[in-house]
Amino acid sequence: MPIKLYDLAGAKDDCRFSPPCWQVKMALKHKGLDVEEIPWRFTEKEAIAFSGQGKVPVLVDGDKTVVDSWEIVRYLETTYADRPSLFDGKMGESGALFIKFWCLQAINPIIFQIILPDLFEHLHSKDKAYFRESREKLLGVTLEEFAAPNDATIAALRTALSPLREVLERQPYLGGEQPYFADYIVFALFQWARAVSPIQLLSKDDLIYGWRDRLLDAFNGYARNASGYPV
Amino acid sequence: MPIKLYDLAGAKDDCRFSPPCWQVKMALKHKGLDVEEIPWRFTEKEAIAFSGQGKVPVLVDGDKTVVDSWEIVRYLETTYADRPSLFDGKMGESGALFIKFWCLQAINPIIFQIILPDLFEHLHSKDKAYFRESREKLLGVTLEEFAAPNDATIAALRTALSPLREVLERQPYLGGEQPYFADYIVFALFQWARAVSPIQLLSKDDLIYGWRDRLLDAFNGYARNASGYPV
Repeated sequence: MPIKLYDLAGAKDDCRFSPPCWQVKMALKHKGLDVEEIPWRFTEKEAIAFSGQGKVPVLVDGDKTVVDSWEIVRYLETTYADRPSLFDGKMGESGALFIKFWCLQAINPIIFQIILPDLFEHLHSKDKAYFRESREKLLGVTLEEFAAPNDATIAALRTALSPLREVLERQPYLGGEQPYFADYIVFALFQWARAVSPIQLLSKDDLIYGWRDRLLDAFNGYARNASGYPV
Repeated sequence: MPIKLYDLAGAKDDCRFSPPCWQVKMALKHKGLDVEEIPWRFTEKEAIAFSGQGKVPVLVDGDKTVVDSWEIVRYLETTYADRPSLFDGKMGESGALFIKFWCLQAINPIIFQIILPDLFEHLHSKDKAYFRESREKLLGVTLEEFAAPNDATIAALRTALSPLREVLERQPYLGGEQPYFADYIVFALFQWARAVSPIQLLSKDDLIYGWRDRLLDAFNGYARNASGYPV
């Protein structure tokens, strides 16, 4: 029985934009594990009630249910220790943990500002009221006030990505010669954008563009073949 | 013959404030290596001319000379591979490299704004003109225009440190249960401040304060016993 993953979807079943779900999906590919990806919407709380909470990703592996992207990936690393490592040990895991929080502070909010109108457009109609209410409560402003899909925000994003770019000047991936889980954490944010928005976040001569391109091609083009805009 | 390290000093020989030098010194302690720390000033270019460039840290290990803090630490990791690891493998090294660039982008400039008047005060008189000219050229403004030793800048620093704080909510060091080189990279910035400035950068109830305190105590209080302000 393959692993099951509840994966956030938009109006269309194949529109999969959740960054934490993309983190897990790339980690599953890295481990060479088959997965059944089950489309799920924000308001389908009953479908994942068995997990004891109301958010995806939810991973079901036989009789084991795991929630929270970080816990899922730690579960995969431990349970499938004989397969390619996502962390290469505790210090590798710690670096990825730092990069996760760096993304949450420095990158997520800027990409969210840029893609928000496009993202909202792609949501399932039954999710829109929930999305608006929950996000406006977190942000303290309306979605329309928060959104800023303009050149200045894109420039701010490119500046904020500087530490990633500096590393990529020295090696092809955050992990060195090969990607590790920290690569997938950042890459997941670009898949979030790509799934819903035609806005080009990176210039083609940016090292980060080339890095993203290699990850789009990884695992037989798994991420590139996902529904999205060819940006 | 012990390893020699050319280490930036202020007016007083024991005022050692350089962050890259502190990175190397903590790495040497981590490896359990003895070192002769040689005080050096910005304008003493001839004293390190043998290294083929004009900046410290410069490490001399027998007939081997290594410059650049990152290259020095990689040299120590490789040459003294039988001693406690600074990286625990390539992915650990990659995480530390990312954190190095994160510091340069997000943390160094803010601490520099806060401590700049105190730092300038502690420089050797023969270095002050060089320091002013080189830094003002980099900054594009005068030192006085750049400096901002006020509560707003301290608040900005505490916010900028959020990814470190988030990791420390889950484990005692960036490296996990024990410090690794990434811990020393960030810690070196606090030693930079501590050597020259009485300004308290962290509140005592901040997890980062406790982390810094443990690193001050490490290696028999090596960093705490260095000349500095008890902040």
